[in-house]
Amino acid sequence: MAAIYRVDMSSLSVRKEEASEAYRDLGGRGLTSSIVADEVPGTCHPLSAENKLVIAPGILSGTGAPCSGRISVGAKSPLTGTIKESNAGGQGAIALATLGIKALVLEGAPVDGKFHRLMIDADGVRIEPADDLIGKGNYDTVAAQFEKFGDKIVCISIGQAGEMRCSAASIAVTDPDGRPTRHCGRGGLGAVMGSKGIKLIVMDPTGGQRPKPADAEAFKAGAKKFQAALSSHPLTGGGLAKLGTNALANVINEAGAYPTRNFSDGQFEGTEAISGERQHDVIIERGGKIGHACHRGCTIKCSRIYVDENGQYVTKGPEYETIWAHGADCGIDDLDAIAQMDRLDDDFGIDTIEAGATIGVAMEAGIIPFGDAQQAIGLLKEVGKGTALGRLIASGADVLGKAYGMSRIPTVKGQAMPAYDPRAAQGIGVTYATSTMGADHTAGYAIGANILGVGGSVDPLKPEGQVELSRGLQIATASIDASGLCLFVAFAVLDDPTAGEGVCEMLGGFYGREFSGDDFSALGKRVLTKERQFNAAAGFTAADDRLPDFFKSEKLAPHDVTFAVSDEDLDQLHDFVD
Amino acid sequence: MAAIYRVDMSSLSVRKEEASEAYRDLGGRGLTSSIVADEVPGTCHPLSAENKLVIAPGILSGTGAPCSGRISVGAKSPLTGTIKESNAGGQGAIALATLGIKALVLEGAPVDGKFHRLMIDADGVRIEPADDLIGKGNYDTVAAQFEKFGDKIVCISIGQAGEMRCSAASIAVTDPDGRPTRHCGRGGLGAVMGSKGIKLIVMDPTGGQRPKPADAEAFKAGAKKFQAALSSHPLTGGGLAKLGTNALANVINEAGAYPTRNFSDGQFEGTEAISGERQHDVIIERGGKIGHACHRGCTIKCSRIYVDENGQYVTKGPEYETIWAHGADCGIDDLDAIAQMDRLDDDFGIDTIEAGATIGVAMEAGIIPFGDAQQAIGLLKEVGKGTALGRLIASGADVLGKAYGMSRIPTVKGQAMPAYDPRAAQGIGVTYATSTMGADHTAGYAIGANILGVGGSVDPLKPEGQVELSRGLQIATASIDASGLCLFVAFAVLDDPTAGEGVCEMLGGFYGREFSGDDFSALGKRVLTKERQFNAAAGFTAADDRLPDFFKSEKLAPHDVTFAVSDEDLDQLHDFVD
Repeated sequence: MAAIYRVDMSSLSVRKEEASEAYRDLGGRGLTSSIVADEVPGTCHPLSAENKLVIAPGILSGTGAPCSGRISVGAKSPLTGTIKESNAGGQGAIALATLGIKALVLEGAPVDGKFHRLMIDADGVRIEPADDLIGKGNYDTVAAQFEKFGDKIVCISIGQAGEMRCSAASIAVTDPDGRPTRHCGRGGLGAVMGSKGIKLIVMDPTGGQRPKPADAEAFKAGAKKFQAALSSHPLTGGGLAKLGTNALANVINEAGAYPTRNFSDGQFEGTEAISGERQHDVIIERGGKIGHACHRGCTIKCSRIYVDENGQYVTKGPEYETIWAHGADCGIDDLDAIAQMDRLDDDFGIDTIEAGATIGVAMEAGIIPFGDAQQAIGLLKEVGKGTALGRLIASGADVLGKAYGMSRIPTVKGQAMPAYDPRAAQGIGVTYATSTMGADHTAGYAIGANILGVGGSVDPLKPEGQVELSRGLQIATASIDASGLCLFVAFAVLDDPTAGEGVCEMLGGFYGREFSGDDFSALGKRVLTKERQFNAAAGFTAADDRLPDFFKSEKLAPHDVTFAVSDEDLDQLHDFVD
Repeated sequence: MAAIYRVDMSSLSVRKEEASEAYRDLGGRGLTSSIVADEVPGTCHPLSAENKLVIAPGILSGTGAPCSGRISVGAKSPLTGTIKESNAGGQGAIALATLGIKALVLEGAPVDGKFHRLMIDADGVRIEPADDLIGKGNYDTVAAQFEKFGDKIVCISIGQAGEMRCSAASIAVTDPDGRPTRHCGRGGLGAVMGSKGIKLIVMDPTGGQRPKPADAEAFKAGAKKFQAALSSHPLTGGGLAKLGTNALANVINEAGAYPTRNFSDGQFEGTEAISGERQHDVIIERGGKIGHACHRGCTIKCSRIYVDENGQYVTKGPEYETIWAHGADCGIDDLDAIAQMDRLDDDFGIDTIEAGATIGVAMEAGIIPFGDAQQAIGLLKEVGKGTALGRLIASGADVLGKAYGMSRIPTVKGQAMPAYDPRAAQGIGVTYATSTMGADHTAGYAIGANILGVGGSVDPLKPEGQVELSRGLQIATASIDASGLCLFVAFAVLDDPTAGEGVCEMLGGFYGREFSGDDFSALGKRVLTKERQFNAAAGFTAADDRLPDFFKSEKLAPHDVTFAVSDEDLDQLHDFVD
């Protein structure tokens, strides 16, 4: 039976417990959000001992279900003040599941303010000192572990930003190559890990056992059907492997929804130079790698290895959102400079979306000019130096914007918007406004139906139909985030009924009972309901489910549109919640 | 008939209008909060064109009622996100009332981002360029005006912090000596003035006419009765003139409620050196001045002129709150250093309470050590340089604390607590938690009954009776803030029924009708109801009416108490609001 480990950092003790009935069937976001909602006081300070950081593999993680290696981390967010779940790829979920761990619950806070390593193996969980790692970035931190413990281990770590408890700090998870490139980026969960005095978690799955589906046959049949659907879809069956997520750059720019220079334009004149096509050519030309899997068992393989002119490793990806954030949003069209910033973000441990958006606001504030890649890199390096300016960059767009007296700050609930302007893709605007976690494209990816022609078609420039679109996607996403499946499987699920059938059959096989599409939907609703309950206790109301004013008053070129979904319609989004 | 002037900074135009029926009887906080609640969208960004800055003299300002020179400034606060009214002494209220101005409503925002001067005289209101004043502190700014326009003028201005739109920026009002020493300090209203592109307002009351009570006889009788009560009370009749507000230092320290080193102790070992008694002796010895009136017509005269060892002017006061904030809260026991910081605060235009509390948090964050006066002065000077660190200091304890990953931040709704620890004076804790404007002692000064033996007696260390105490005080305070009377008249009003009768008779005489104690109370309830309505629209809930966790978990020496008023009881405070 999978266990929950509670690590009390106040007393530096570990307690193993069996999951209660209520948590037994849960995993991933379903489990992190339930524990946080049930156990963390809504009004507590996110960096205080009362907050809890919950780390959980998805329901299917470790089973061999294709693309099921997402690891969920949840807590009250220091960035948004809401409940937060942020998930990542990498090897973390598989390692935890193999060690029979349903969730790690990190509680309390160390009395002496010191940093520790959690060492997890078949013998259990141990708390060890990590003084030697203080001040190190994620790359050096994990390299030292692989040297010490061998290449079987998997690391979950924070960089300098997490140590400083800055609210854009991420949590890094190592990929199959042992690099700290997969991040639970959003919501500042690295700061919560820092506040718990945990610099890193090292897992050695040796001697562990993969979770076994209750009905192996049914599970296997579902997995096969699911993989067939993934393989036959143009995006999950090859498109994402070839061009990566950044295939979107040209598409979203063409649609006029590519936020440029801190959301002041919908098209960036430098898009071609930072597009997925260009990135592909540069990587191939230099001997990098495309079609890289961020975790074993991923068949989509959207990741890539970016190398410099000498063929030396620089960073993974970078992904579409990262390239946009450090590129178009800052008026920068230099792919190498963007890759350098991605590497710095991963090393310092900050969310690439928040970092880029914050630099964009810093540019609008006049700290450095738009388009100046070298000064942007310099600004980012301040994070590693721990200066006041660096801490502002690592604290996100809202905090920097407040310190510099800015009013055009593209955030919702304190979290920076990602790479789609909500005026030119109003469905994603609904998701930004109403998500339980602040502006987040992954919470309900309306870009599919708004722009990509995936999962239906809803006019991106008009308010009609967007709430219904976003609602359905937010529910389905919560289910997927609970399952441990990568969200990108949704491209196949939305277009091909057999993909969704495969998912339900895998879940049914895993549990050893019937699992219908309605059960899948009920799971998402259950998760969102928990999250809304937490947010209500934390003081969030409909007034927080709003975009910043300027999206309603400033017209976005080239379509000259404002965000037009009414407040009344936004307030209907969560009508399924009790 | 008194007029409302609307100054539209978007079109650089001025419109004069007669006060509507709903506003006719209002003044001060009653008027600012009503206009803000009626006209400003709750969810707007406080620094956007949608916010409005409303400046209004009190109902009785300019009439000759004793101590009636308070000027109210209101807006949506960039510090708290709530509605905000901050009032100050100085000559501003009398000047506006003499010019027949019931309220100035500053709207919109300048398209070109430039700064302007509002010139107000008997001919009306004009918008003029103020490019020559950019980057100047309040002292230089107003000195240049007196040189240019003569000594009849009164100035309302912002310093560098307001220009930078930092959220602890204050608005300065000149005193009878023409110095910018009286500040609407709390809530960052200087940033709102900065966002409107208004560097200063110059009023020349020449040719104006004092407001005339409708029933001059009744008014005069009320004023006489009121003044007699003020004169016969030990505090308002001499105590405050002699020792100033800082007479409290020893008293509050003795009570164990004097927050020390960022609210980690209730008594400061250096209190004697920064006490009101010591301050009195230093001022007298050096040839400064005690018993100074901050506006003409004040008979309490709690202000003072602080001079250096050569007898040269340094600053006014400093007041109790300022000396505590820069003193005990930072572990500093150097009165001259504190006076220097008070001068810097007034010159840069930042709230002295917020500035000191922010330095206290910076000390706990390890930026500089507790107790180091020279480094504290250095930190404050960063504000004038406009560095990232300076902007953090000028943005308040919450923003600096967030950038530095702190969880012990003594704020409510983003505003720093003043000089009374809520654990050792639980009534003021109720006020901090439930005030419509964040932690604010003036919103309901429970210290009277908790510690000073004024207005009853409620055990400061116990939760019982505190909500009732704070509720009554919050209602009465809202009435007083509407009247234009200085809050210090409350010492007499609470102890001597004839003082309250005098206030009602003055108001009755002013309006020319009966005005009962119930009418006075109804006025306060009306104001608070408006404010709560605004805050609800802005998204505030009961979850925001809470003290930070650490006041409930960390015991305060010497009484070893935590804040014990229950959430349920706190939620009863506003039960009179519809």
